[in-house]
Amino acid sequence: MVASTPCPLCSNPGGELLWQDDLCRVVLIAHGDEAYFPGYCRVIWNAHIGEMSDLTASQAQHLMNIVVRVEHVLRQTVQADKINLASLGNMTPHVHWHIIPRWRDDSHFPASTWAAALRPICPKQELTQEQWRQLGMQLASRLQNELPGSHPSPSVQ
Amino acid sequence: MVASTPCPLCSNPGGELLWQDDLCRVVLIAHGDEAYFPGYCRVIWNAHIGEMSDLTASQAQHLMNIVVRVEHVLRQTVQADKINLASLGNMTPHVHWHIIPRWRDDSHFPASTWAAALRPICPKQELTQEQWRQLGMQLASRLQNELPGSHPSPSVQ
Repeated sequence: MVASTPCPLCSNPGGELLWQDDLCRVVLIAHGDEAYFPGYCRVIWNAHIGEMSDLTASQAQHLMNIVVRVEHVLRQTVQADKINLASLGNMTPHVHWHIIPRWRDDSHFPASTWAAALRPICPKQELTQEQWRQLGMQLASRLQNELPGSHPSPSVQ
Repeated sequence: MVASTPCPLCSNPGGELLWQDDLCRVVLIAHGDEAYFPGYCRVIWNAHIGEMSDLTASQAQHLMNIVVRVEHVLRQTVQADKINLASLGNMTPHVHWHIIPRWRDDSHFPASTWAAALRPICPKQELTQEQWRQLGMQLASRLQNELPGSHPSPSVQ
């Protein structure tokens, strides 16, 4: 396992909290921080676990159900052309999923968001602080509906 | 949805077949084709579906169980420092998962394999055709054990 001490996902929420239960949380990437993909969320396992296959089968199933529900909510909310899902963890080996909305005319499409940009950002990629706040509220509300039995804790005010 | 016609994952296996069932298949990236991450596998949904959230909950669960089992088998087989999982599909919007073993001294670590290389490839990243064939046989055999009820069809001879 790759060391990362202290782990930033053990000591910080990792974004603006949209939803959580006892095992994991959904956060919206903060405005101004990798914010050029509006709606970019992370689903973070609360315990410090390095790989998906370190989880029990039912834990992995629970986590992936939430990842797919976040994808579904993003598709309803931001009208993306594609959603990218990834769990890399090379720098922070604490299981967390990236759920990234993509648009055909975004700065990197069809390359990954981790590749070099291919063109300048497009208008869909820029949100004001107020638009970002409203998007967070919409996502938090829809996640509450999509994930019954949740303990919603939206911190996006 | 992003168009891709004809879809290469509908018309081709997408790699060397290691395991399959009626719904999906596991392939090893062919020698010489993105081969600098030995053990790099893809899990490909057989039907032409664009996003994970287009699958039913039980289909998504079935697919992710296989992705996590492939990760587990790779960890047993190639002694990677990290495994990266991703479903992007920007160029080929047909659900397929990348399961990529990573090493601390690999050409891109800790960046993603889609970013620019940071250094030359390390010895672990190079396999001869014969080493690659043997790795494929090992992975196919372990997947058969990990995924009971499968229809193993290793094409790596």
